[in-house]
Amino acid sequence: MQLLPGFRDFYPEACALREYILSVWSSVCQRYGFAQYDGPALESVDLYRKKSGGELVGQLFDFNDKGGRHVALRPEMTPTLARMVIARERDYKKPMKWFCAPSFFRYEKAQRGRLREFLQLNCDILGEAGSGADAELLALVIDVLRGFGLGAGDFVVRLSDRDAWAQFALARGVGTERLLDFLAVVDKLERASEADSRHKLETFGISLEAVREFIRNPACEAVKLGEILANLRARGMAEFVEVDLTIVRGLAYYTGLVFEVFDRSGKERALAGGGRYDQLLEVMSDGKVSMPALGFGMGDVVLANLLEDVPAAKARRDAWIAARGVADVYVVIADEGRRADALGVVQGLREGGWRGDYAFGELKVGKQFQAAELAGARFAVVIGSEWPEVKVKRLADRQERMLAANDLHQQLAAWDLERLP
Amino acid sequence: MQLLPGFRDFYPEACALREYILSVWSSVCQRYGFAQYDGPALESVDLYRKKSGGELVGQLFDFNDKGGRHVALRPEMTPTLARMVIARERDYKKPMKWFCAPSFFRYEKAQRGRLREFLQLNCDILGEAGSGADAELLALVIDVLRGFGLGAGDFVVRLSDRDAWAQFALARGVGTERLLDFLAVVDKLERASEADSRHKLETFGISLEAVREFIRNPACEAVKLGEILANLRARGMAEFVEVDLTIVRGLAYYTGLVFEVFDRSGKERALAGGGRYDQLLEVMSDGKVSMPALGFGMGDVVLANLLEDVPAAKARRDAWIAARGVADVYVVIADEGRRADALGVVQGLREGGWRGDYAFGELKVGKQFQAAELAGARFAVVIGSEWPEVKVKRLADRQERMLAANDLHQQLAAWDLERLP
Repeated sequence: MQLLPGFRDFYPEACALREYILSVWSSVCQRYGFAQYDGPALESVDLYRKKSGGELVGQLFDFNDKGGRHVALRPEMTPTLARMVIARERDYKKPMKWFCAPSFFRYEKAQRGRLREFLQLNCDILGEAGSGADAELLALVIDVLRGFGLGAGDFVVRLSDRDAWAQFALARGVGTERLLDFLAVVDKLERASEADSRHKLETFGISLEAVREFIRNPACEAVKLGEILANLRARGMAEFVEVDLTIVRGLAYYTGLVFEVFDRSGKERALAGGGRYDQLLEVMSDGKVSMPALGFGMGDVVLANLLEDVPAAKARRDAWIAARGVADVYVVIADEGRRADALGVVQGLREGGWRGDYAFGELKVGKQFQAAELAGARFAVVIGSEWPEVKVKRLADRQERMLAANDLHQQLAAWDLERLP
Repeated sequence: MQLLPGFRDFYPEACALREYILSVWSSVCQRYGFAQYDGPALESVDLYRKKSGGELVGQLFDFNDKGGRHVALRPEMTPTLARMVIARERDYKKPMKWFCAPSFFRYEKAQRGRLREFLQLNCDILGEAGSGADAELLALVIDVLRGFGLGAGDFVVRLSDRDAWAQFALARGVGTERLLDFLAVVDKLERASEADSRHKLETFGISLEAVREFIRNPACEAVKLGEILANLRARGMAEFVEVDLTIVRGLAYYTGLVFEVFDRSGKERALAGGGRYDQLLEVMSDGKVSMPALGFGMGDVVLANLLEDVPAAKARRDAWIAARGVADVYVVIADEGRRADALGVVQGLREGGWRGDYAFGELKVGKQFQAAELAGARFAVVIGSEWPEVKVKRLADRQERMLAANDLHQQLAAWDLERLP
């Protein structure tokens, strides 16, 4: 009777945090004109095999269902998105701007920042080849994080361009078929030993110095990065991004822009990552649908760690959660003989949109007031001998008024708009 | 590359409907003071075996994970809820009022009203034995459906009481160990042939006539149902409920109140169902935690069918969805040389909370206005030769104003509050 390792129970406090993250994700995406979509949690394993690369196949929760189908819990969204877009792309005006934020499943060793079930915001733009879409996507990832109260001192978006590396390598005689192997060496540059990197690069006929010089000064090949940076400058977002050509990203399907978002402290894993995958739909549809595309994913686990560490973000998070977990009005039943009337009042308040609560059983009035405070209620409505009038107490300043029980919700709404002294 | 049978793709239109359902579920539960929680999508199979009854074990998506654990996608919430409450019940004040609305998975034949992955609202009250909690839960299920614009002419809650049946059977000499078998006969009464029911009841020494008479007139044993009905009358909800002792519900763990909600047309499967399970926590914790409890589940599939069939509910649904899928402001770039300025305006509007959109590439002004209409924007902001002023058009009445680009979002907010002529 235990929770499986790498999975989470969301007790109300934890669930409120999850709802907060989902709410910021969703509201910022909507401000950017992104439409929400979703797919099934279970897909045929073939879908994940079909995608070029398929690094995640080894981490699948896969099995044969009762009908003998080899299926897997989704480890990422892109294959599902590609499947959906390929099936119905003619029904949607381009560019398509879509987001989703469901659960994903990967059989990995659970550790800080990594769980086996996690949420991930996925934002994608499909059908736009121009760098304006790259900049829009980057602006979105920046504003999503700013939506949590994080600033340029807290995170940075590191940009790179696989096309620039492709041009660099092709110009030095690396064949297209060896390009991914070359990128793999660049990907490991910061973790591998110098001797090892040098040796591996020599097999491509390229010196470590040439690679380092290109990372320092990528100007000529990375024209598109320049356009993207200018676009972000126009939005006042230059301080959030840095060009860093050591970013390559593991997934084989990326083409142009690739990026990763890190916390400035360097304590956490990547907060988000993404890029262009202009050829993926063509590969997955066997040439039937060809469409430029780009997107990013942002998980909830690393993000939640950062929200705990950054005071301004933590304060915003806590204020949201505190506002959520409360009743607006608590109905105190001072005369148990009037319980039926009290139930009518509770019902009227709830129908008027108030979050109303009360005690199920007979309870001393003092205990009911304690429950009202505990529930965070702004008003306590006392049902007693004055019926059909009720005594209402504003709990913040103990002000009391006698109000008619009839249409109470409207009178309370008016009172609620008055300023506290 | 196909969707698995019984699973769903949520393209933006379908996803908006899903978000609508989730939003009504969640807002009504919050008005009732229910706190949201959730658990993992995957649990150990033992958890589902442990629950007395376990009818769903045959419908599990179960498998051995890479670590050799026998696991299953959750087919229902109650076992997870019981596990969570047993582990930490001391941390929460009673009564606990909790809700969740995640996805569930059952390997069933896909048909109208039944899918293999579906959403289900689960609402539970724990730690309250009194009938006030039963009434609160029923009021909630009624108000959730009313939240969709459904009325007493559209659905009915059928109440029954397993305790009343237990008293009936025990008084007629049926032993406790045969009680569930007896209830199974009552459960099938409306579907089985008269001869069959009569024959089966005889094995308990009970006549079909006695059972029918009890269903017609259950007054003496069903005291608690009377209290519950009085409570609902006090809330003005009498018209939504009917006593119907033929309701037994299959799951073995129910004790007192059981209920099912049906559409009045009788076309659909049950919209929701639930009841008391006062002994489940004790059974599942091997006696460690004993707590009265009750709850209901409401799936999204049958509900969505009903929302399509009831005109008032359909209108409310469509209005919500239409309001969601739009931009507030569309920024028209009349002078491509001013794209950087336009991006700054878009950014300022979005930071001001507006849903703002624009075209990524150079596009004729007329096409951009078409896009603005298509996006449902209320305002079009034209970036052109008047910069740093901009021409703003309110699309509903074609009224135009020249506004300073600086602080545009506040000027628009003020204008937006003015009445349309």
